[in-house]
Amino acid sequence: MTEKGTHSYFSDSRNENVQIYVNGEIYPRQLATISVFDSGFLLGDGVWEGIRLLNNQMVFLDAHLNRLYRGAEYLAIDIGKSKEELSNLIQETLDANSMKNGVHIRLIVSRGLKKTPYQHPRANIGNSSIVIIPEYKIANEEVNENGIRLVTVTIRRGTPDSQDPRVNSLSKQNCISACIEADRAGADEGIMLDLHGNVSTCNSTNFFIVRNTEVWTSTGQYCLPGVTRQAVIDICLENDIPMIMKDFRIMDVHSADEAFVTGTFANIIPVKQINNKKYILKKSNLSFYLRELYLQKINKLAPIIQ
Amino acid sequence: MTEKGTHSYFSDSRNENVQIYVNGEIYPRQLATISVFDSGFLLGDGVWEGIRLLNNQMVFLDAHLNRLYRGAEYLAIDIGKSKEELSNLIQETLDANSMKNGVHIRLIVSRGLKKTPYQHPRANIGNSSIVIIPEYKIANEEVNENGIRLVTVTIRRGTPDSQDPRVNSLSKQNCISACIEADRAGADEGIMLDLHGNVSTCNSTNFFIVRNTEVWTSTGQYCLPGVTRQAVIDICLENDIPMIMKDFRIMDVHSADEAFVTGTFANIIPVKQINNKKYILKKSNLSFYLRELYLQKINKLAPIIQ
Amino acid sequence: MTEKGTHSYFSDSRNENVQIYVNGEIYPRQLATISVFDSGFLLGDGVWEGIRLLNNQMVFLDAHLNRLYRGAEYLAIDIGKSKEELSNLIQETLDANSMKNGVHIRLIVSRGLKKTPYQHPRANIGNSSIVIIPEYKIANEEVNENGIRLVTVTIRRGTPDSQDPRVNSLSKQNCISACIEADRAGADEGIMLDLHGNVSTCNSTNFFIVRNTEVWTSTGQYCLPGVTRQAVIDICLENDIPMIMKDFRIMDVHSADEAFVTGTFANIIPVKQINNKKYILKKSNLSFYLRELYLQKINKLAPIIQ
Amino acid sequence: MTEKGTHSYFSDSRNENVQIYVNGEIYPRQLATISVFDSGFLLGDGVWEGIRLLNNQMVFLDAHLNRLYRGAEYLAIDIGKSKEELSNLIQETLDANSMKNGVHIRLIVSRGLKKTPYQHPRANIGNSSIVIIPEYKIANEEVNENGIRLVTVTIRRGTPDSQDPRVNSLSKQNCISACIEADRAGADEGIMLDLHGNVSTCNSTNFFIVRNTEVWTSTGQYCLPGVTRQAVIDICLENDIPMIMKDFRIMDVHSADEAFVTGTFANIIPVKQINNKKYILKKSNLSFYLRELYLQKINKLAPIIQ
Amino acid sequence: MTEKGTHSYFSDSRNENVQIYVNGEIYPRQLATISVFDSGFLLGDGVWEGIRLLNNQMVFLDAHLNRLYRGAEYLAIDIGKSKEELSNLIQETLDANSMKNGVHIRLIVSRGLKKTPYQHPRANIGNSSIVIIPEYKIANEEVNENGIRLVTVTIRRGTPDSQDPRVNSLSKQNCISACIEADRAGADEGIMLDLHGNVSTCNSTNFFIVRNTEVWTSTGQYCLPGVTRQAVIDICLENDIPMIMKDFRIMDVHSADEAFVTGTFANIIPVKQINNKKYILKKSNLSFYLRELYLQKINKLAPIIQ
Amino acid sequence: MTEKGTHSYFSDSRNENVQIYVNGEIYPRQLATISVFDSGFLLGDGVWEGIRLLNNQMVFLDAHLNRLYRGAEYLAIDIGKSKEELSNLIQETLDANSMKNGVHIRLIVSRGLKKTPYQHPRANIGNSSIVIIPEYKIANEEVNENGIRLVTVTIRRGTPDSQDPRVNSLSKQNCISACIEADRAGADEGIMLDLHGNVSTCNSTNFFIVRNTEVWTSTGQYCLPGVTRQAVIDICLENDIPMIMKDFRIMDVHSADEAFVTGTFANIIPVKQINNKKYILKKSNLSFYLRELYLQKINKLAPIIQ
Repeated sequence: MTEKGTHSYFSDSRNENVQIYVNGEIYPRQLATISVFDSGFLLGDGVWEGIRLLNNQMVFLDAHLNRLYRGAEYLAIDIGKSKEELSNLIQETLDANSMKNGVHIRLIVSRGLKKTPYQHPRANIGNSSIVIIPEYKIANEEVNENGIRLVTVTIRRGTPDSQDPRVNSLSKQNCISACIEADRAGADEGIMLDLHGNVSTCNSTNFFIVRNTEVWTSTGQYCLPGVTRQAVIDICLENDIPMIMKDFRIMDVHSADEAFVTGTFANIIPVKQINNKKYILKKSNLSFYLRELYLQKINKLAPIIQ
Repeated sequence: MTEKGTHSYFSDSRNENVQIYVNGEIYPRQLATISVFDSGFLLGDGVWEGIRLLNNQMVFLDAHLNRLYRGAEYLAIDIGKSKEELSNLIQETLDANSMKNGVHIRLIVSRGLKKTPYQHPRANIGNSSIVIIPEYKIANEEVNENGIRLVTVTIRRGTPDSQDPRVNSLSKQNCISACIEADRAGADEGIMLDLHGNVSTCNSTNFFIVRNTEVWTSTGQYCLPGVTRQAVIDICLENDIPMIMKDFRIMDVHSADEAFVTGTFANIIPVKQINNKKYILKKSNLSFYLRELYLQKINKLAPIIQ
Repeated sequence: MTEKGTHSYFSDSRNENVQIYVNGEIYPRQLATISVFDSGFLLGDGVWEGIRLLNNQMVFLDAHLNRLYRGAEYLAIDIGKSKEELSNLIQETLDANSMKNGVHIRLIVSRGLKKTPYQHPRANIGNSSIVIIPEYKIANEEVNENGIRLVTVTIRRGTPDSQDPRVNSLSKQNCISACIEADRAGADEGIMLDLHGNVSTCNSTNFFIVRNTEVWTSTGQYCLPGVTRQAVIDICLENDIPMIMKDFRIMDVHSADEAFVTGTFANIIPVKQINNKKYILKKSNLSFYLRELYLQKINKLAPIIQ
Repeated sequence: MTEKGTHSYFSDSRNENVQIYVNGEIYPRQLATISVFDSGFLLGDGVWEGIRLLNNQMVFLDAHLNRLYRGAEYLAIDIGKSKEELSNLIQETLDANSMKNGVHIRLIVSRGLKKTPYQHPRANIGNSSIVIIPEYKIANEEVNENGIRLVTVTIRRGTPDSQDPRVNSLSKQNCISACIEADRAGADEGIMLDLHGNVSTCNSTNFFIVRNTEVWTSTGQYCLPGVTRQAVIDICLENDIPMIMKDFRIMDVHSADEAFVTGTFANIIPVKQINNKKYILKKSNLSFYLRELYLQKINKLAPIIQ
Repeated sequence: MTEKGTHSYFSDSRNENVQIYVNGEIYPRQLATISVFDSGFLLGDGVWEGIRLLNNQMVFLDAHLNRLYRGAEYLAIDIGKSKEELSNLIQETLDANSMKNGVHIRLIVSRGLKKTPYQHPRANIGNSSIVIIPEYKIANEEVNENGIRLVTVTIRRGTPDSQDPRVNSLSKQNCISACIEADRAGADEGIMLDLHGNVSTCNSTNFFIVRNTEVWTSTGQYCLPGVTRQAVIDICLENDIPMIMKDFRIMDVHSADEAFVTGTFANIIPVKQINNKKYILKKSNLSFYLRELYLQKINKLAPIIQ
Repeated sequence: MTEKGTHSYFSDSRNENVQIYVNGEIYPRQLATISVFDSGFLLGDGVWEGIRLLNNQMVFLDAHLNRLYRGAEYLAIDIGKSKEELSNLIQETLDANSMKNGVHIRLIVSRGLKKTPYQHPRANIGNSSIVIIPEYKIANEEVNENGIRLVTVTIRRGTPDSQDPRVNSLSKQNCISACIEADRAGADEGIMLDLHGNVSTCNSTNFFIVRNTEVWTSTGQYCLPGVTRQAVIDICLENDIPMIMKDFRIMDVHSADEAFVTGTFANIIPVKQINNKKYILKKSNLSFYLRELYLQKINKLAPIIQ
C-alpha cells in the first residue's frame, strides 16, 4: 500500500508496464514521454481529468468530459477532437491494457508543442497534446473507515479574475503549496479558505460538513466543481437530505457534527480530526450513509459484470 | 523572422538540430523528451529561467540562478545541485552545441518524476528534473526601434497568499490568459493590474513609464522580479536618473511621456501605443538612452571576443 | 439609422423640433436650456429615467418613478412633486408634441440651481430642476435579430460605500469609461465586473446568459435595477423558466449557450459574440422566446389603439 | 456673508450681474445657459477647475490647466483648445467683467452636445462645451482663525478601477454624499477614508495633520491632487519642515497635535474639532505658520499692483 | 429609570444587594470580585450570554447555552461543566436571590486564572472562571412604543479570519467603538456595515427592515447570531411572513417602510429615525405585529405562574 | 523555569506574595481582585502595558506611557491621572515590594466599574480602574541563544476600520487565537499576516528578518507599535545598519538569512525555524549584534547601581 491520506492505494506491480497513450500512439510506461517543448511541461498550459473505471464503465464520463472541454474553452485551447473521439481514445488505451476494473485514468490535454519556449499561444505549432495514463489503483478502504486528518492552511484559493479556481488546469501550484503546508502540519489534506475567509475546499478533494443532519458545502465559487461533489449533492436532493451550499467558516467546521471529503479516487472519506477538533466516526454517521448511497449509485451506473 | 512583439526574432535553421540537456543526458531536439509522469508536465510544478548568452558570457547568470533557487525554495523543490554545478551543466550544453553568442537559454527545473499522477510531493520519486534548451535567437531590433502596442487586460495578477506572483513557476496560466486577451485586442502584450487596481507588469515583460524625466515602475510586489528590470533600476541609480518604484494607475500611464517594457530576451522595448493613447518615439526619448546605457552595461559584462 | 449597438435607431427629422419641458415651461429643442449654475451641469448631481411610450402608454411608468424617487431619496434630493404630478408633467410634454407612440422619454431631475458653484447642498437655492425630453425613436430591430458584440472591460462597477452602483444618477462617469473601453475594442457594450470579479452588467444595459435552459443574471447588488431586467425575471417566473440570480464569472459566460442584454430602449437583444466566443443565434433560442413573451407583455400593458 | 465652513465668503451684489463665458459667447448671469442635451447636464461627463484671481494673476494657473487636461485625457474628452487658448478665454471673461482681484473662477469643460441623451460618446456632436464662471468671492478669514469642525463619514473614496478618485470630474456624487453626511452630523466637512480604511481627504478640501512637528498627508492615491495641497507640500520641502505622505488612520488623527485642510478657495484652514477630539488653535501652531508661508508664496506669484 | 435607548430600564434598589455567583461561591454584589490575574480581566479572553428570567423560566436557555459552548469551543476554552451543570448553577444563583421574574442574567465564562499576565493559554492554571450576575431589570416599554434613533457608523464589523464577528466573546472593543460613535452622533445605537459595505447589525442589537411587507435581515455572516433575532426569523416562517436573509445596503434602509432592532433584553424595538430618514410608527406596522407574536411566543414558553 | 518560547522565565517564589496595586490600594497577590462589574472583565474594555524594571529604572517608561494614553484616547477612556501621577503609582507599587531589578510590570487601565453589565460607556460609573502587577521575572537567556520556532498562522491581523490592530487593548482575542494555532503546530509564536497577505507581526512579539545585511520589518500599519521594535529601528539608524520598513511576504521570510522577534520581556530573540525553513544561529549573525547593541542601550539608560 502506498501513499497515506485521500489517495492511499495498494501498489500493483502491473502498473510498471502499463500502456500509455501519447498523441496518437500507445507506449509502455517507460517510453511514454512528451517533448520538452510541450506547453504542459514548459508552462502548465493545459487541462486534465481523473476518471474511474468500474466494471468496464468509465463512471460519470460525461461530467468529466464536460468539465474538461469547459476548461479548455476558458483557456482557449482547441482540443481538436470531439468528446466521442476522446472517449474512444480512452477506451482504446484501456483495451491496449485489457483493463476492465479498478482502474484510475489520468487524462491530460495540453496546448501542445511550441516552436520555442515562449508563453504566447502564437508560438504553438500543431495540435493539442493528449496523454492518457491508466493505472490499477484500488483505494485503501481503511481510509474510508478510519478517516483522515485535516488542518486549515494559510494558502488561500486564487481569485477569479487572475486564475479562476474552478478550472482544472495543469497550473496546480496553488493546490500543491496548500498540500505541502498541510503535510508539514502532519495532516492528510489542507482546508483552503477563499479570499473572504470562507471555507472553500481541500487541496485535492472537496469538503463537506454535517450539522444537525444538514449537509453543508461551499457555494462552489472558489473550488473545483468536483464530479463526486456533484454526485453527493444530487444524492442529498434525491433522498430528501437537507443540502446547503453556502459561505461558512472554520468556526462552523469546529462546531460541526461530522466532516467528510469527496474525490473521484476515494469517493467519500470521513474526517477524524480538523486542527484540534476531533470528530467521532460511528456507523450511524450521515457521512457513512451518504457513502453507501454513493456506492449504490455508481454500482447502478456500472453494474458488476456477470 | 518569427513572432511579433516582444519576442520577435529571426528564425534560424540551426535550431532544428539543437542539442538539449535532459536529466543528465544531451539529446538532439527531436529526441529531447520528458516522462509524462514528470511533475512539470502533470502539474506545472517547477521553476524556470531564460538566460542570454552574449560573447560567450551568460549575462546576469548569478541573478538568474538566485531567482531560480529562491523560487525552488518557496515551492519546497530540492534542485539537488549547487549553483555552480547547474552553471556547469548549462555550459556543457552550450559546448555540446558549440554555441558562443546570440543564444537564448531556457532552464527548467521541475519537482521530477512521480510514481503516480497525484499532486502530493510524497508521490514523487527521485530527484528534480533539469532541462536546458539553448536556441539561436537574435532579437529583431526593428521592434526596439518601432515599439510595440499594449492594452490593459481584465486578467489581474494573482494574490500573494494564493500563489505569490513574484515566483517564476511553471504554473503560468495567469500570464497566458493575459497574453491571449491582449492578443485578441490586437496588442503585443497586456498590462496587468494588481488586485488593488494598480499597474503591475506586462504578461511576459516588466513595465515602466517616463513622466517628466522620472522613470516609474511598480513596487514589485505583484510582478516577476525581472533581471533586466533590476538592471534598468540600477542604471538609473548609477546615472542619477530619478527612479521611482510606486503604486500608479492607468491614468498615470495615459498621461506619461513614454512607456517601455523590459525582458531578458528583448532588453528594452519602447511602447508606441497603450489602449488609445499614442506615444511619440523619438531619438531623444529617455527610453532610447536607457537602452543605450543597458547595452553598454552588458557589453562591459560580456565584451566582444577578439 | 443612427448609432450602432444597443441604442441603434432610425433618425427622425421630427426630433429636430421636438418640444421639451424645462422647469415649468415647454421649449422647442433649440431653446431648451438650463442654467450653468444647475447642480446637474456643475456636479452630475441628480437622477434620471428613460421611459418608452407605446400606444399612448408609458410602459412600466410606476417602476420607473419608484426607482427615480428611491434614487432621489438616497441622494437627499427633494423632487418637490408627487409621482402623480410628475406623471402629469410628462403627459403634458407628450401632448405638447402630440406624441402617441414610438417615443423614448428622458426624464431628468437635478438638485436644481446653485447660488455659487460649490458642491454643498446648502449652496442650492430653490427647487429641484425637472427636464423632460421626448424623442421619436424606433429601435432598429435588425439589432434584435442579428445581435451585438460585447467585450469584458477593465473598468469595474463602483463600491456600495462610495457610490451605490444601483442608483441611476447623473454622475455616469463609471459607465461612460466602460463604454469607451468597449468601443475601442470594437464592441457595442462592455461587460462590467463587480469588485469581486463577478459579472455584473453591461455599461448601458443589463446582462443575462442562458445555460442548459436556465436563465442567469447577476444578484443585482452592483448593477442598475433595470425595469426590463425585472420584467424578464418576472416573465421567467410566470412561465416556469428557471431563473437564477447569482454570482457568476466570465468562464460561465464563455461556456453559456446564449447571452442577451436588456434595456428600456431596445428591450431584449441577443449577443452574437463576447470576447472571442461566438454564440449561435437561431430561432429556437430561449432569448428569442423571452423577447416574444416580453413583447406580448408590453402589448398587453399598452394595447394597440384601434 | 454666506455659507459656513470651508467655503464661507462675503456675498457681493456684483455677482448678480456677472458676465459668463459659454461656448464662445459672453452672457450675463441670468442668460448663461447650456443645452439640456449637454453631456455635462445629462451625465456629469466632463472636468472642471476652481481658480483664484489675485492681483490680476490667476494663481497656479499652469497647475490647474495641467490637471484639467490630464483629466480630460483620462476621460477621452478632446478639449479642442490649447492651454494657451483656454487661458486667453478665461482672461477675456475676466476682462468682460473688468475683474482684477478677489475673484474665484469656475472653469467647466464637458464632452459637449449630444444628439440624443445616450451615454455613448458616439452620440456626441460637435466640440466640447466650455463654460467660465467668475465670481467676486472674498473668503471669510474668520474661518482661517477660528477653524472648522470635521467628522469621519461612512462614505468612502471610490476605487481606481471604477472611477479614479484623483480625477476632478463633473460626476461628483461621491463627494456630495460625503458632504451631506458631514452636514447632518453638524460638521463643516467630512473626512473620507479610502477602501483600506486609511484617511484620504475631506470632501471638498485636502486634509493634513501635524504630529510632533511633522506634517502628514495621505499618499495621494485616493484624493484629488489639490493645487494648494501641492503648494503646502512644496512649502514644507523648501522650509525643511518634515513632510510625510503616508497611509494613516483615524487613530493617528485623534492623537495629532493639529489638523488643517487646504483648498483653492480658502487656502489653509485649521481644524478645531474632529469627531469628539478638540484641537487647540494657538498662534504658535505650525498650521498658522504654514498659512503665513503660503500667503507669502502667492503674494510673490501675484504681487500687489501699485 | 436609567439608560436610554435599547437598554433603558427602571432602576431597582434591590440590585444593590443582589447575590452573585463567582467560581463556586455566592457573594453579595459589593464582594463579587475576580482575581486581577483572570483571563477575562487581563485579555478579554472568554465568552458570555445575557438571559431573561420570565415567570420563573429562563427563556431560550438552550439557544443561549448552545451559543456559549460553540463560542468557547471556537476559543478553545474548556468550560469544565456540562450544560446541565451550568444551568443548575444559574438556578442556584436565582434561588439565592429568590428571583422569579423580571430578571436579566449575565453569564460570563473566562479562560480562568493565569499564573502570570501573559496571553498564552499555557500560562493558565486551573479551570475556567464562571460568573453569574442576575439583576432585576424591567425594560422600559416606552422605548418599544416610541422607537429609537440609529446612525450608520464608520466602525465596521471585523473579518472572519481575524476574529469571527459571530462569537460573543469578552473582547468587545469593536462594538464599544461603534457604540461610542453612535452616541456622539446623538443616536441610541449604531448600524455597522460589514467589510463589503453591506448592513450587518447594530452594536448591541440585531437589525431588521420591512419593505413591502417583506422582513429583511442580514445573512448573519458578520453579526452575532442573536437569540431574539432567530426567534423573529422563526416567527416569520411560522406565520407566512416573507423573511429574507440577504446582503443589503444603506440605500435599502433609507427606502424601507419600517426598521426595528432585536435583543434579549428589549425584545423588539421599532426605529423612528436612521440618519436623516424618519419612519412612521403606527399601530398597523409589521414590527408591532411581530412584537405581539414574539410576546405570545415567550409567554407560551414561560406561562404566568398562577 | 516556566513557559517555553518568548516568555520563558525562571519561576520565583517571591511572586507568590507580591504586592499589587488595585484602584488606590495595595493588596497581596491572593487578595488582588477587581469587581465582576469592571469593564475590563466584562468586555475587555481597556488598555495595558508591560514594562521592565532594570537597575531601578523603568526602561522606556515614556514610550510605554505615551502608547497607553494614545490607546486610551482612541477608546475614549479617561485615565483620570496624569502620566506623572501614573508613574508615581507604579513606583509606589515597586516600593511596596522593595523591588529594584529583574521585574516585569503589568499596567492595566480599564474603563472602570459599570452599574450594570451593558457595553455602553454611559453605563459606567466612577473612574477608570488602574491595576499594577509587578513580578520578578528573569528571562531565560537560553532562548536568546538557541532561538525559537515560528509558523505562519491562518489567523490574520484585524482591519483598521473595525479594531485598529495597533492599539494595545484588553480585547486580545485575535492574538490569543493566533497563539493557540501556533501552539497546536508545535511553535512558540505564530506569524500573522495582514489582510493583504503581507507579514505583519508575531502574536505577542514583533517580527524582523535580515536579508543581505538589511534589516526588514513590516510598515507597522497592522502590528502593535512595539517599544523594543522601535528601539531596534533606532539602533539600526544610529549604527548605519540598513533598516527597511516595508510590505513583505512569507516568500521573503523563507529566503531570508536570519529572523528575530522583539518584545519588552525578552528583548531580541533569534528564530531557528519558520515553517519548514531552518535558520543557522551563529555568533556572527546580525541579530546577535543587534541584541548586544540593544543591551548596551538599555544598560546606558539604566546603569548598574554600585
